[in-house]
Amino acid sequence: MEDKKQAYKDLLDETREIHALEMAKEVLEWDQETCMPPKGVELRSRELSALSGLIHEKTSSDHMGELLLQAQKQIDNEEEGANLRELKRAFNRVKRVPKKLVQDISRLGALSQDAWIKARNASDFSLFSPRLKEMISLKREIAKHLKEPGQTLYDALIEDFEEGAREATLVPMFSSLREKLSNLLSRIMEKGDQADETPFNGSFPRPMQEKMCKHVAKTMGFDFEGGRLDTSAHPFTSGGKNDVRMTTRYDESDFRPALYALIHETGHALYEQGTQAEHQGTPLGETSSMGVHESQSRLWENQVGRSRAFSAYLLDTAGQYFGRDIVGRNLDTFYKGVNIVRPSLIRVEADEVTYNLHIIIRFELERALINGTMEVHDIPAAWNKKYQELLGISPSSDAEGCLQDVHWSWGLFGYFPTYSLGNVYAAQLYGKILKDIPGLDSKLQKGDTAELLQWLRENIHSKGRRYLPAQLIEKACGESPAESSLISYMENKFGELYGL
Amino acid sequence: MEDKKQAYKDLLDETREIHALEMAKEVLEWDQETCMPPKGVELRSRELSALSGLIHEKTSSDHMGELLLQAQKQIDNEEEGANLRELKRAFNRVKRVPKKLVQDISRLGALSQDAWIKARNASDFSLFSPRLKEMISLKREIAKHLKEPGQTLYDALIEDFEEGAREATLVPMFSSLREKLSNLLSRIMEKGDQADETPFNGSFPRPMQEKMCKHVAKTMGFDFEGGRLDTSAHPFTSGGKNDVRMTTRYDESDFRPALYALIHETGHALYEQGTQAEHQGTPLGETSSMGVHESQSRLWENQVGRSRAFSAYLLDTAGQYFGRDIVGRNLDTFYKGVNIVRPSLIRVEADEVTYNLHIIIRFELERALINGTMEVHDIPAAWNKKYQELLGISPSSDAEGCLQDVHWSWGLFGYFPTYSLGNVYAAQLYGKILKDIPGLDSKLQKGDTAELLQWLRENIHSKGRRYLPAQLIEKACGESPAESSLISYMENKFGELYGL
Repeated sequence: MEDKKQAYKDLLDETREIHALEMAKEVLEWDQETCMPPKGVELRSRELSALSGLIHEKTSSDHMGELLLQAQKQIDNEEEGANLRELKRAFNRVKRVPKKLVQDISRLGALSQDAWIKARNASDFSLFSPRLKEMISLKREIAKHLKEPGQTLYDALIEDFEEGAREATLVPMFSSLREKLSNLLSRIMEKGDQADETPFNGSFPRPMQEKMCKHVAKTMGFDFEGGRLDTSAHPFTSGGKNDVRMTTRYDESDFRPALYALIHETGHALYEQGTQAEHQGTPLGETSSMGVHESQSRLWENQVGRSRAFSAYLLDTAGQYFGRDIVGRNLDTFYKGVNIVRPSLIRVEADEVTYNLHIIIRFELERALINGTMEVHDIPAAWNKKYQELLGISPSSDAEGCLQDVHWSWGLFGYFPTYSLGNVYAAQLYGKILKDIPGLDSKLQKGDTAELLQWLRENIHSKGRRYLPAQLIEKACGESPAESSLISYMENKFGELYGL
Repeated sequence: MEDKKQAYKDLLDETREIHALEMAKEVLEWDQETCMPPKGVELRSRELSALSGLIHEKTSSDHMGELLLQAQKQIDNEEEGANLRELKRAFNRVKRVPKKLVQDISRLGALSQDAWIKARNASDFSLFSPRLKEMISLKREIAKHLKEPGQTLYDALIEDFEEGAREATLVPMFSSLREKLSNLLSRIMEKGDQADETPFNGSFPRPMQEKMCKHVAKTMGFDFEGGRLDTSAHPFTSGGKNDVRMTTRYDESDFRPALYALIHETGHALYEQGTQAEHQGTPLGETSSMGVHESQSRLWENQVGRSRAFSAYLLDTAGQYFGRDIVGRNLDTFYKGVNIVRPSLIRVEADEVTYNLHIIIRFELERALINGTMEVHDIPAAWNKKYQELLGISPSSDAEGCLQDVHWSWGLFGYFPTYSLGNVYAAQLYGKILKDIPGLDSKLQKGDTAELLQWLRENIHSKGRRYLPAQLIEKACGESPAESSLISYMENKFGELYGL
């Protein structure tokens, strides 16, 4: 007799096989950034494209469609329902886009990436704009196929990164952040006194920084039996659960860049390591959205890593590797030195306050591009105008302006807002954590992060994709996603730091 | 209008995609031995099995069958003919084995591997023998499906590793080697004077050994822009052409193990790097058989690496890393110390003379097992008897006896003889090389390997799978595969070394 849940089981088997291929792809991508010899690039791109093709085929196969249909009748509980919901959604999104469009955009991706690199090297947006125009036109077409009733074109694209997020809620949220944070920035700039950074200048040999970074990652709870730390040009985290790989980068004249990139990536990595073993390879064992992922990295990097309490632990730890007198052995100097607010042109180097302003600029521009209210050739001027308006500075070239990010050349429209959503979620989660764990700061001072990690494991990591991102945040914090926690966190912290 | 060679082109495209998946698999396997965190093993095995399944499907798909049929009519020259011959052969071999048998053996492989590990740890062959019995029975069944007219069952299995090799030629070749080498060994043992190894004992820090190994690999012609050197428990080489990865292992009390493993692996790696760029991903751009591959590693390791001439270069190079007085600065001590002949129980640690005796024992046993003239439970006694007979020593346990090699647990019957074939080919090739490159020794003394590498590039590396292995050797040396060169090489070298 056939098992009553055979179709559901077969569906999960097929899903786990697709997941294994995706994880194989991540190892190859990690290898490309960390190990691969330079001449290997052409073969590697053929390997990745062969795998992508197979994953795409399997995800949208008739066999998969049949399994989804049959399994639907066999769902017994909420967890199985969540798995089915996510798998159906993925299947439908792939099915709705005509194959020709998928091929066109995959071909254009490589060309567009190439044009972007050339344009950035020449600092000339016009070398990139023809490809970007094509890219936007294809993404609009795709959005038309994906768009559900009540969604805007941009909404349909955000769904790739943040299920359930909508312009209608993001626009007021980001307007509020725009107003409050640019106001906070002005007040900080008016005060004019900046922290002294000279104590951070020195000679910090890379092998010692590596040891310190591994020490801090272990303190935070990272399991090196199920993960690694390596070096790459741009820090990132890849893999999942039992094989999570993070990277950082080292500046031998200042240990802060490596340390804070490490803390950020460890936040991502702990999320992966905290997913549920028994659900590996299915949505219940995956991480939620890009925004939720970013909330984990930012919470550790900022709310924890740049707090006065954890600064004490970090100063002490750095002292173990670079001598007790590091940073004048002064906690206040350290704390101020890792919280300097200073408008800059480059997003990835931005501080906590200005970071979201960088994101808001990109969000406003890409919405207009996708919704058809702005033309590609207007980007450089609009970009520079917004930087002047929000950050009080203007790029002197396209390279340090509208050509700095890789996202648009890959067609990743709708990705940027998840960075700020991550910050919004992080502030909400941390507010609740401070209520739930009395005396957390005195624990963090000693590097004791066990209860904090336990809270995140229970409320976020173990949930997988059981809930949509907004529901997950609401269940964890008791309130739906909203910017007010982030704003008051910023005003309190930087108000005190800068004596506003 | 359809291109007249469309099917042939499509066939190569499909072949290149399969090749990309195979190369992806090799990177994952390399990663498992060098980088993967311990807990990653379960996911990795699912990744590898998903990839193997897809490769198998694509290799034997109806689409592939159709392309082969169509392409057949479009072949214009010998090179295209070779590609088609090899692709058809691979397709037919896969097609001939019933799917059920493939699944059975793949399941058994994991169980058998597990049983072998347990048996080896307990040094108890009886824990492994039931699985080995099943394995042999399945391999015999597979051989029946693969066997072509005139082939023995064992022939059908050798074909997986050495196309065209036959018991009928291997048996007399190996009998002759058996007789001559065991005679040579007896004479060496009678002399009884062994080299002094104390000058090789010392402290050789791993980082310095690594630098020395990279130096030697570069000297030999290895291109680090298209490859890497790492560390693993058992040295190996993987990948191809523009991304070739070798490993070695380090003993900090003696630099010889790392150095000679490195030279051996560089021999394999140079073969991969020397394949033709324009044929990558097709048989013409691949390496030939296991035996030819081994001939490249052994030629560099033994004919070159353990020659008096190259010893001078190696002693000088080691001196740059470990001080000029290393090995008493004595070439004779060095040369003797890397050519010590001493019967041992473990194949992978054997010297040039005894190595082939280890292989012959395995060859004789596995032929009997596959052809049905010996029972599994007779292995331990037969093994020990042969060791006594050929090497004059007997294992005190199954672990250092018949359980030492992993091959049979994976069902790799027919693999062992390719090791000795590699030695046979290497001696033949080197004989021709010495004729073709006058004064080679004086070049090797200075570490000048350029002409030697050029000869190998032209005569072996660039040929891909254009010819069957035996033809390739014949075209390169002017004579078909034969053991006499190896025997006279051994008798000359060790006769002189041991004053016989």
